[in-house]
Amino acid sequence: MIVSALLTSVGINFGLCVLFFALYSVLRKQPGNCNIYVPRLVAEDKSRTSYFNIGRLLPTPEWMGRAWQPSEDELLSSSGLDAVVFMRTITFSLKVFSLAGIIGVFILLPVNCTGNQLRDINFANLTNNSLDVFTISNVNNGSKRLWIHFCAVYVLTIFMCYLLYYEYKHVSSKRIAYFNSSKPQPHQFTILVHSIPVSAGSSISNIVKNFFMEYHPSTYLSHLVVHKASKFRDHFQAAFVSFKSRYGAAMVLHMQQSDNSTEWVTEQAPEPHDVYRPFFSSFFMRKWILKLVVIVACLLLTILFFIPVLIVQGLSNLNQLEILFPCLKSFLSMAFVSQIVTGYLPNLLLQLFLKLAPPVMMFLSSIQGFISYSEIKRSACKKVIWFIIWNIFVANVFSGSVFNQLSFFLEPKNLPARLAVAVPAQASFFIAYVVTSGWTSTSSELVRLIPLICSLIKKPFADPTTDKFEAPTFSYHWDIPRVLFFSLLGIIYFLLAPLILPFLLVYFCLGYIIYRNQFIYVYAPKYETGGKYWPIVHNSMIYSLVLMHAIAVGIFTLKKLRLASSLMFPLPVMTLIFNAYCRTRFLPTFTTFSAQSLINKDRDDNNDPEMAEFFSKLVSAYEEPTPSPIDHSTNSDSQTSPLLTPV
Amino acid sequence: MIVSALLTSVGINFGLCVLFFALYSVLRKQPGNCNIYVPRLVAEDKSRTSYFNIGRLLPTPEWMGRAWQPSEDELLSSSGLDAVVFMRTITFSLKVFSLAGIIGVFILLPVNCTGNQLRDINFANLTNNSLDVFTISNVNNGSKRLWIHFCAVYVLTIFMCYLLYYEYKHVSSKRIAYFNSSKPQPHQFTILVHSIPVSAGSSISNIVKNFFMEYHPSTYLSHLVVHKASKFRDHFQAAFVSFKSRYGAAMVLHMQQSDNSTEWVTEQAPEPHDVYRPFFSSFFMRKWILKLVVIVACLLLTILFFIPVLIVQGLSNLNQLEILFPCLKSFLSMAFVSQIVTGYLPNLLLQLFLKLAPPVMMFLSSIQGFISYSEIKRSACKKVIWFIIWNIFVANVFSGSVFNQLSFFLEPKNLPARLAVAVPAQASFFIAYVVTSGWTSTSSELVRLIPLICSLIKKPFADPTTDKFEAPTFSYHWDIPRVLFFSLLGIIYFLLAPLILPFLLVYFCLGYIIYRNQFIYVYAPKYETGGKYWPIVHNSMIYSLVLMHAIAVGIFTLKKLRLASSLMFPLPVMTLIFNAYCRTRFLPTFTTFSAQSLINKDRDDNNDPEMAEFFSKLVSAYEEPTPSPIDHSTNSDSQTSPLLTPV
Repeated sequence: MIVSALLTSVGINFGLCVLFFALYSVLRKQPGNCNIYVPRLVAEDKSRTSYFNIGRLLPTPEWMGRAWQPSEDELLSSSGLDAVVFMRTITFSLKVFSLAGIIGVFILLPVNCTGNQLRDINFANLTNNSLDVFTISNVNNGSKRLWIHFCAVYVLTIFMCYLLYYEYKHVSSKRIAYFNSSKPQPHQFTILVHSIPVSAGSSISNIVKNFFMEYHPSTYLSHLVVHKASKFRDHFQAAFVSFKSRYGAAMVLHMQQSDNSTEWVTEQAPEPHDVYRPFFSSFFMRKWILKLVVIVACLLLTILFFIPVLIVQGLSNLNQLEILFPCLKSFLSMAFVSQIVTGYLPNLLLQLFLKLAPPVMMFLSSIQGFISYSEIKRSACKKVIWFIIWNIFVANVFSGSVFNQLSFFLEPKNLPARLAVAVPAQASFFIAYVVTSGWTSTSSELVRLIPLICSLIKKPFADPTTDKFEAPTFSYHWDIPRVLFFSLLGIIYFLLAPLILPFLLVYFCLGYIIYRNQFIYVYAPKYETGGKYWPIVHNSMIYSLVLMHAIAVGIFTLKKLRLASSLMFPLPVMTLIFNAYCRTRFLPTFTTFSAQSLINKDRDDNNDPEMAEFFSKLVSAYEEPTPSPIDHSTNSDSQTSPLLTPV
Repeated sequence: MIVSALLTSVGINFGLCVLFFALYSVLRKQPGNCNIYVPRLVAEDKSRTSYFNIGRLLPTPEWMGRAWQPSEDELLSSSGLDAVVFMRTITFSLKVFSLAGIIGVFILLPVNCTGNQLRDINFANLTNNSLDVFTISNVNNGSKRLWIHFCAVYVLTIFMCYLLYYEYKHVSSKRIAYFNSSKPQPHQFTILVHSIPVSAGSSISNIVKNFFMEYHPSTYLSHLVVHKASKFRDHFQAAFVSFKSRYGAAMVLHMQQSDNSTEWVTEQAPEPHDVYRPFFSSFFMRKWILKLVVIVACLLLTILFFIPVLIVQGLSNLNQLEILFPCLKSFLSMAFVSQIVTGYLPNLLLQLFLKLAPPVMMFLSSIQGFISYSEIKRSACKKVIWFIIWNIFVANVFSGSVFNQLSFFLEPKNLPARLAVAVPAQASFFIAYVVTSGWTSTSSELVRLIPLICSLIKKPFADPTTDKFEAPTFSYHWDIPRVLFFSLLGIIYFLLAPLILPFLLVYFCLGYIIYRNQFIYVYAPKYETGGKYWPIVHNSMIYSLVLMHAIAVGIFTLKKLRLASSLMFPLPVMTLIFNAYCRTRFLPTFTTFSAQSLINKDRDDNNDPEMAEFFSKLVSAYEEPTPSPIDHSTNSDSQTSPLLTPV
């Protein structure tokens, strides 16, 4: 791509951003749009109707100030820990790319420009020429100046690892504090048991009751068998079992109950409104097979998605398109059209194709056997990250025939060298991607175009008094992968083409203010994972770093600086060891709470007079909203005076 | 290697086996050798002195009958579950190689012989010629007969997976039954806590007591702080904590105790005489770094071992030796000498080098931070397997320069094809290896040469009345890897050179009778893992199968039967899925016992009047044998009447 095409794309997107900001500022002031722009306030009945004045028609920036104000603790109490984790992902990236941007723009970029490896490029005619002069490709082979790049990689890695450690520690302490300050909630006292062995002549409810009365008589409180009437026969075979203390529930959860590990399988119960029911009654074996099927489906989908990616890459390469469609030749040879087609259209198309990924991954995760919406979203989030990295980054970098790529991945020895050739060549494509997908999509998030249009169409027919209004939930499974993908781009191109970094910094600044605004006014937390997204963010950052190291090894080999290439090897090894340490140190906090926390929390509750009422409600918390025959039973001996002390 | 060299090797080793058998039969009858051949009976004071008669000087085979007789349950009660697992590994291999032998010798071998790919070989002159005529290399390229080999791979894989499933199930049920029938043992009620946070002004003993009295008041029984006086200061910072019930101990073991996962780290306590003390007082971080250091050391050792392997391979290649040492030329050109040097000497040398591996791996495992001898042995067992497979199999197959090999492992695409060329070429070397290392080493195990010589030297100086005699323990970390390596050889060469199978069958038959004999009369169980070696055996078999599939893919590609090569792909995938299922289904049984088992066992004990005495002894079970200041404390409130019911 030539510089003028990139400038066209930046220009269009900058214009769109300004338009979206102005539009939002005006639209938001219209009382009719409350449901779109401040649905949280509407749902909480806090929105005020303002009288008409001329200011309502003028764009003003004061909403930015309001979005800036709340502290992290205020955000935590209003939007939950997942929102805090999401915002910390953005601030983490801001910190990383501030340093990377300073090093990249003020040190690496001048070094790259002073090289003359790409001699045929004429500086005077810059705007019509390739951006390659700003990349590492322009540094002379074997130049001692490459040691500056080498040091930059070390500095960024050490800085990122330090920040990652600090953030992991912070988020895990937040997670513990969040649990410690939480009110008693049904899912803390409840587990889901499935694969219950059936015996003839005894109802499933009795089997469950007998089992827990026999083995956990002092902590067992009650249970609720989940029925699922299908066409052929009634399915049971799952039950919510509630306990008198959090520690009692955790004990049952963490110990294998039966000698046969496929029977009496226990899972942490989700929050009552987070329950996803279709897979309750599945047996161990069925869930296991479904998981396999989903993995295969994901792989297939990822491979099939090569096709649209190749089409998009075809657009970037205008000559190919002219050969395919000769009739378009005269049209495409117009300068403006060609700049739009190569600079803007490919990214727009890719964006549209990618919009399909999250719903498809959500569907795949939903048939994988998870029992809660939050876990489905979290699993979809991981799938989307993998999908985006694979399809946008890898496929775009190595656009060529699919078979060539497969054979190429079977030769990892050549991987760094190939990456070092292919990745810098795509720098301008990804700068365009940052402005299209990063700037414009994030700004359009502010205006919420689709809900706005839907509301305009619906308005004449809707009766505002009947429906209970509900604020939307945030799509973590789409926004986290996007932010992580931009971080990946930044980390990789930091070394290769630092010109991308200012564009990324603008994106993260936009993201910071816009997402904060949306969390405060738009998205309400409905269910949450309690910060479990952070390990995904952490792993993705580590993966990005190691990928950067691999590319650095390849670049230094290509540039004939063998020593730097060899001295790069310890870095990925140390990074992976650092990651292993973080896993052992912090990851357990994200899967379970400690005995100490649980017991202390149980003791605190013991003094709470409201607990008797809570326990009486706990029995029915997981009843299905629709009327259906439900078996539940309580441990009546002690229900009235639950022993909350751990025993 | 030529046929006559192989026959020389087989002849020498067969002679040695007969000699060892005869020698054992005679030596065993001499009363003076009781300590060597029936140390278990001596230790249990059951050996009888027989009067001299002429029969004592004649070799007789009746010891074989006696070794044959005991049932599995008798072996279990006399030698423990680990011995049963070891014997089942041998019977498993016997079953597999019986079927493989029938298919290999009666179907594949004739098919291989009827090919004429290697035309230059003259059948009449067989004994002086290569064994390659019996290998798959002799089958014509593109021949339809290769489909017979294809089917054989499928049949053997399915048969092995069926047997593996059945065996895993059997061993895991044995493990549960073994636990259920065990008497109360201190390690079932005890855990080891390390990385205890120290606070100024409070003794470590008080800190431990306060923690467990606060969070586990109803199950905590007592604790014992382990001191370690070093030159600089007293180390504490580990403690054995005993509980009133097995379930109580398991609960603390399976739950993270503190919010900081590097504090209050719990481990299952080993049996009191299995305790390995040096690493008690280590902090989490130190243990973690030690583990890393050991991994690096293992890698280095494996790489350095290439050197002796290359020397051994040089011997196999006589021409090279003649070039290096021209003075030996006339000596080496003698037929008998050359046959010994190429057929027998390389294996003998390799055997001697390999004898160094188990003690070195034991040393590495011992500094890795394990707290029991049995775990050290188990970890050394895994290391030795990896070491043997890598060094004997891979290094011998690809003898060439080390750098070539490294670059080659970075190109996994070519791996099957390269394996398919290199592996069949080494068939005769490995047949010689089976007879040298398999037959002779196993038979020499019977005679116990080194203890015999030691005893002969010591006898004049030893006073038989003073020392308490102790029977030796079995070296699982050396014998399991050997048996598994022979299985790997058999599985791989089943397809390539089925001539190895009869030799392997003889080895496993010898092993069956000899190891049974040794378990009954020689090795006493001192401590054990309770069958935890089986998952290692299972994984090794799966690894062997997948390696065979990879080689099969390469062979069919080389032999220009592309369809068979493609149809081979589902097999490793299915095998790995089968393995994943077995892991989920059976592996949990090998790491922990279920709540059901533990609680039932605790209840049974409740009715046992001897438990009060057991608990009073439990407090001091883990005291060090040497006198040292020991802090222990009991939960005195309820020590006299321990509540065994799970609460």
